[in-house]
Amino acid sequence: MNIGEFKVHHTSGNARRATLTTAHGTVQTPVFMAVGTKATVKAMSVEELKSCGTQIVLGNTYHLHLRPGEQTIKKLGGLHKFMNWDGPILTDSGGFQVFSLSNLRDLSEKGVEFRSHLDGSKYFISPEKSMEIQMDLGSDIIMAFDECLKYPAEEKEIRRSMDITYKWLVRSKAAMTRPESLLFGIVQGGLSLKHRLESLEQITSVDLPGYALGGFSVGEPIHLMHELLPDVAPKMPAHKPRYLMGVGTPYDLIKAVDAGIDMFDCVMPTRVARNGTIYTWNGKVSIKRAEYKEDPSPLDPECDCYTCSNYSKAYLRHLFLSGEILGSRLNTIHNIHFYMKVMEKARLHLEQGTWEAYRDDCLARFVKRDGV
Amino acid sequence: MNIGEFKVHHTSGNARRATLTTAHGTVQTPVFMAVGTKATVKAMSVEELKSCGTQIVLGNTYHLHLRPGEQTIKKLGGLHKFMNWDGPILTDSGGFQVFSLSNLRDLSEKGVEFRSHLDGSKYFISPEKSMEIQMDLGSDIIMAFDECLKYPAEEKEIRRSMDITYKWLVRSKAAMTRPESLLFGIVQGGLSLKHRLESLEQITSVDLPGYALGGFSVGEPIHLMHELLPDVAPKMPAHKPRYLMGVGTPYDLIKAVDAGIDMFDCVMPTRVARNGTIYTWNGKVSIKRAEYKEDPSPLDPECDCYTCSNYSKAYLRHLFLSGEILGSRLNTIHNIHFYMKVMEKARLHLEQGTWEAYRDDCLARFVKRDGV
Repeated sequence: MNIGEFKVHHTSGNARRATLTTAHGTVQTPVFMAVGTKATVKAMSVEELKSCGTQIVLGNTYHLHLRPGEQTIKKLGGLHKFMNWDGPILTDSGGFQVFSLSNLRDLSEKGVEFRSHLDGSKYFISPEKSMEIQMDLGSDIIMAFDECLKYPAEEKEIRRSMDITYKWLVRSKAAMTRPESLLFGIVQGGLSLKHRLESLEQITSVDLPGYALGGFSVGEPIHLMHELLPDVAPKMPAHKPRYLMGVGTPYDLIKAVDAGIDMFDCVMPTRVARNGTIYTWNGKVSIKRAEYKEDPSPLDPECDCYTCSNYSKAYLRHLFLSGEILGSRLNTIHNIHFYMKVMEKARLHLEQGTWEAYRDDCLARFVKRDGV
Repeated sequence: MNIGEFKVHHTSGNARRATLTTAHGTVQTPVFMAVGTKATVKAMSVEELKSCGTQIVLGNTYHLHLRPGEQTIKKLGGLHKFMNWDGPILTDSGGFQVFSLSNLRDLSEKGVEFRSHLDGSKYFISPEKSMEIQMDLGSDIIMAFDECLKYPAEEKEIRRSMDITYKWLVRSKAAMTRPESLLFGIVQGGLSLKHRLESLEQITSVDLPGYALGGFSVGEPIHLMHELLPDVAPKMPAHKPRYLMGVGTPYDLIKAVDAGIDMFDCVMPTRVARNGTIYTWNGKVSIKRAEYKEDPSPLDPECDCYTCSNYSKAYLRHLFLSGEILGSRLNTIHNIHFYMKVMEKARLHLEQGTWEAYRDDCLARFVKRDGV
């Protein structure tokens, strides 16, 4: 096994069918990674994740640093053992959460001082500290510590942020000394093509096993991302994995694969499941709908997940209205299975040379963001 | 298969090892039944219930009548199909919940008028209505509609309540016309031996496939129940199953089996699990304890449940403190497995003639109510 090896096996336009080898196994791409922020993918067991086709899960540096602390996890044998997941794990660097969740932060080139959203206690994270935490967790893919720019931002602000993100990447690389882990750099640059391409050039000037696009899904109109991606993603190094962070709906995923993205993560399928929102091959529905009260049919007639194989819409509606944990479980299983299936089919169609037909069928089925 | 057949295979003092045959299979007693009030045992899947050794689950007439309504469940093929549980189901009659949960009730010999705790809408349940609901649910064991007396109660009140419970039992029997279901009568009579034995005589004068003791776990000091049981349970018909409703801790179960009880149900193992309380062979513990922060050992070294086979106390503590659904799931699996194991071992020791040693060992391990 050659850790970090990335092979492109098929292409269709910018879209790629590839494999990425990590210390915990080879990932088939394009891939959707399930978000397990606090060392658990919300409401799911690891066996359920696997039966849904999950290949790789995310952990979060900010959250795990605050609780239970990476030293605790390290003493217990690392994040894989702690959460009983033996497949690959990618950890976000904490950059996004420091800027979105914490209070009273003080940003300097040195790093970021902030107060925990849990108890107000003071913390400091620098590129070096973020690497140390992620290495202690035993992460297979470590993300560089970056500044996630808010939207909208002014030219001056964008440039300052790009520069610090670049400097922090250089320091992240110097600090990342764990041979089993792969360090990915994060391209920022806001939503103008000019700055994105500048950041891309800066970030990819550092030789790394993979690169990500950060700073999307930060409140911008989503069409801006869809317009940018075909001009940005194909310019990322062709022989390295490309990861679009924090995105998105099934529609977003198909559009981004078409632009040449290989890896995705998003809390959406799990979060909305707990609120009773279900993804299907015919669009998004709410399980609350009165018309489901006596509906014996499964959530999606085209789906073979555990939920659809065993339970009716009527039962799922009842569980949701009753606030039962099993409702959150069954909805989450379905949504994660759906996301994994969308990507599995994408890989299959890329192999068979039928990507364009699949892409167009998906885009027609999944209406834009507000639909699915 | 002879529905309703009850065979006692072994005895030790008053304790019995028996089998009860229902339309959905034969139950090995003594048995603990998992409580699935609203058509789901909270936080668990049916597969997890089975892997924990669950033989029979409870549903609740009051809750299911209010939501989603028994007509809905009947149209969807009955409660077994609705919740995907193919084993036996016992339904409580709604008596207990009408008196404990609903508002503005108006009790007469005819029945009880009450307002839903969900939305204040008005309902009326009589013995006939309770039977109709439970038959529509397709329950294997149907409980008679009774008045669950509050504690403490005065002599006059006890007698009025006993009489109405008896009259309602006669009407319950007349209204119960479903041949696949078994009707159990409920002995009331508060906490004096005299009234209990009077109620027992009244209730058992009606020929039925089983009898229950109701009106315990209503706020009384638990020693009153432990004192009464050895004088009451053995006087229940020897060739019919005896069910102690709503009880209890592992300690209570062992004491009651020793008095001759065959069947139990209680929300305790599932409810306290969600609050982080864990039953073990060495007593009850809270998963929150600071000393578990870095503890790599399972909840109970003597336990072979899914949770103990895969997860450390440190991980479970982290999940609990983080409010993660997986924490509720894993704690519930452990507690239900523990309850089922206590009863499985009870059956084994009754078969092998070693009940007394097992009983004494359990009682020594499980300190009284406040301990376990």
